Amino acid sequence: MTTISLTTDFGLRNGFVGVMKGVIYKIAPEAKIVDISHLIAPQDIREGAFALWRAYSFFPEGAVHVYVVDPGVGTMRRPLAARIGAHFFVGPDNGLLTPILEDAGRENQEIEFVHLENPKFHLPKVSRTFHGRDIFVPAAAHLANGVALNEMGTPFSDPVRIQLTRPQKTSTGWIAHLTMIDTFGNLTTDLPFSALQGRTDILLRLRGAQVNGIVESYGHKRPGDLVAVVDSEDYIEIAVVNGSAAEKLGAKVGDEVEVILPPR
Amino acid sequence: MTTISLTTDFGLRNGFVGVMKGVIYKIAPEAKIVDISHLIAPQDIREGAFALWRAYSFFPEGAVHVYVVDPGVGTMRRPLAARIGAHFFVGPDNGLLTPILEDAGRENQEIEFVHLENPKFHLPKVSRTFHGRDIFVPAAAHLANGVALNEMGTPFSDPVRIQLTRPQKTSTGWIAHLTMIDTFGNLTTDLPFSALQGRTDILLRLRGAQVNGIVESYGHKRPGDLVAVVDSEDYIEIAVVNGSAAEKLGAKVGDEVEVILPPR
Amino acid sequence: MTTISLTTDFGLRNGFVGVMKGVIYKIAPEAKIVDISHLIAPQDIREGAFALWRAYSFFPEGAVHVYVVDPGVGTMRRPLAARIGAHFFVGPDNGLLTPILEDAGRENQEIEFVHLENPKFHLPKVSRTFHGRDIFVPAAAHLANGVALNEMGTPFSDPVRIQLTRPQKTSTGWIAHLTMIDTFGNLTTDLPFSALQGRTDILLRLRGAQVNGIVESYGHKRPGDLVAVVDSEDYIEIAVVNGSAAEKLGAKVGDEVEVILPPR
Repeated sequence: MTTISLTTDFGLRNGFVGVMKGVIYKIAPEAKIVDISHLIAPQDIREGAFALWRAYSFFPEGAVHVYVVDPGVGTMRRPLAARIGAHFFVGPDNGLLTPILEDAGRENQEIEFVHLENPKFHLPKVSRTFHGRDIFVPAAAHLANGVALNEMGTPFSDPVRIQLTRPQKTSTGWIAHLTMIDTFGNLTTDLPFSALQGRTDILLRLRGAQVNGIVESYGHKRPGDLVAVVDSEDYIEIAVVNGSAAEKLGAKVGDEVEVILPPR
Repeated sequence: MTTISLTTDFGLRNGFVGVMKGVIYKIAPEAKIVDISHLIAPQDIREGAFALWRAYSFFPEGAVHVYVVDPGVGTMRRPLAARIGAHFFVGPDNGLLTPILEDAGRENQEIEFVHLENPKFHLPKVSRTFHGRDIFVPAAAHLANGVALNEMGTPFSDPVRIQLTRPQKTSTGWIAHLTMIDTFGNLTTDLPFSALQGRTDILLRLRGAQVNGIVESYGHKRPGDLVAVVDSEDYIEIAVVNGSAAEKLGAKVGDEVEVILPPR
Repeated sequence: MTTISLTTDFGLRNGFVGVMKGVIYKIAPEAKIVDISHLIAPQDIREGAFALWRAYSFFPEGAVHVYVVDPGVGTMRRPLAARIGAHFFVGPDNGLLTPILEDAGRENQEIEFVHLENPKFHLPKVSRTFHGRDIFVPAAAHLANGVALNEMGTPFSDPVRIQLTRPQKTSTGWIAHLTMIDTFGNLTTDLPFSALQGRTDILLRLRGAQVNGIVESYGHKRPGDLVAVVDSEDYIEIAVVNGSAAEKLGAKVGDEVEVILPPR
């Protein structure tokens, strides 16, 4: 009864996701399948990385997380399976796991990688363009059935990593960056609240707009007000009460946010 | 093997829904999870109310229905769990349950409400902005596991209610209102067919257009025709055969529909 | 623990799909439900036919596939259940199963059809506009519970069929047709790679553009290049590396593609 999560850029129209679930139930009829997102922007490894990183730790231990954002499908990029702490991951070796690996490094979690070379755990016929169906979910279903990682392929220790933005310390505070825009138009940054050492009397500047201070929640200001809050993952977030900050400011993922800690 | 339904305005891109499912399976691995909608318009309690009201009674008895359309997250609005007849509900106390409570009142069903104050049934850390993850689905999963409602918090009996449109009797018939526009552009009204006492020879006026009589089904007229039918919940509905009435008429939720019963 | 798949044009906003799942779990609490697509274009039987045909064979044997693309709901069109080889199908008799039946014919699979007339396997009250909820998923759930096909209605042998495009042989090669455009803008044709007898040195012409030769996978050319590949079902596909061929060429489903085999 292992949980298998799916994160892809396949969209919801063409049935690709349904096919992958059919394959999972064929191999692991007891699995519990959860969609994280299938609306990752096409081939946007960075967006997929943030989505999976924010979600995976809320799943049961032993869960298997499949990600298929895979511009290199059919080329030499390695298909991989990994164990990072108590969670398993399956997908292309393209850096999507970078933020999860960074956390795992800081927390000294055990990390194992294998190159999914053993055809016994692929579908009988592997296409050139749909490894999600032919290699990744079969591997995930076999992991859910208790097959050991090292039966599935050769261990390796140099997974691809991608460059992620990092907040930079300045003389007056920080330069942060927008990492995600959610469905409400709320703007998440890469600056953890902990970096402010408890101060909420900060000034934020973004796209010509200014926000004064962090409030407890959206509901503490009036509809239409631009506010800063601490988001559900403890990062600084900019929002419009009952509205869309993304729309109001024309903000884009990657935008710089100046965070100023006024002298006390 | 309790069924847990989810109705939110979270969208399907950012992984919020997947995270909530991960939390459910961690607490209640045997639960069956069903999405009702995650595309409720942002913070539109009324749309959420209609979606859940139309759906919940088709679920198995004992089902737990979680709704998270929650403009007041992080303020003093109460998180609640309720039993209404044979179904459980979990979400913010913001009136979304109003039509379900009205039906329950008419049918003399048993109703219980508790304020979800017992931190034992929250996630260890409760954020200010994501109570769906931290309070509501944990409560739903514990209910699915058989925890009693009154273990989770303090009973109360004054849930928030919202104002819903009601059809008004006129000298020639009724003024009805559009309550929902579906994916085909069909227009549902708040006038039950029973109010017409079996008559199908009515006249409907809406946005300058007129419809003569109720037909048995879409297929009884030609493609492109504007028709009135009785919808799957027994309400009067206006549709275009193989087309979109919403587009043809520029109709909006809340629009008035004049319903005329000609003298016989 | 039978798998039930769902293919509809209901969209994801209004809760229709959630209602159908509630009904399934009420009748067959052990079922595994998989969405193939709910974003089929409204009443587009052809798109539904391709989506289900491409997906169903990857599901476990004994799976029940429900399809509800149903412009004739409420008219005399027959509601049906079928067994085709090792899979069951439930939906309106409108030709959506045509490509599956053609394959089954070629492979001499056993085929049975029944007209779902037995009200014992409908919901107690059957509406005129939502047979997905009232007739089709109840039948699917009872099939999942082991009810025999012939208990549910009268056998018949003349299911409706629709006309599908077929590639035409020409003096220099083939005229193929676009059958599907996926979420990446990749263009699938109705020409199987097997028709080229192993040749990859072909020329394709579509909307004034020309593609030279079939490459192994998207990643073998540069971003922006127009390429031809063999898709995951062994059909010839036209794509733009890391981009959208549909957008680049303004291509539409049904477009002709000239396929030329140069003399060797």
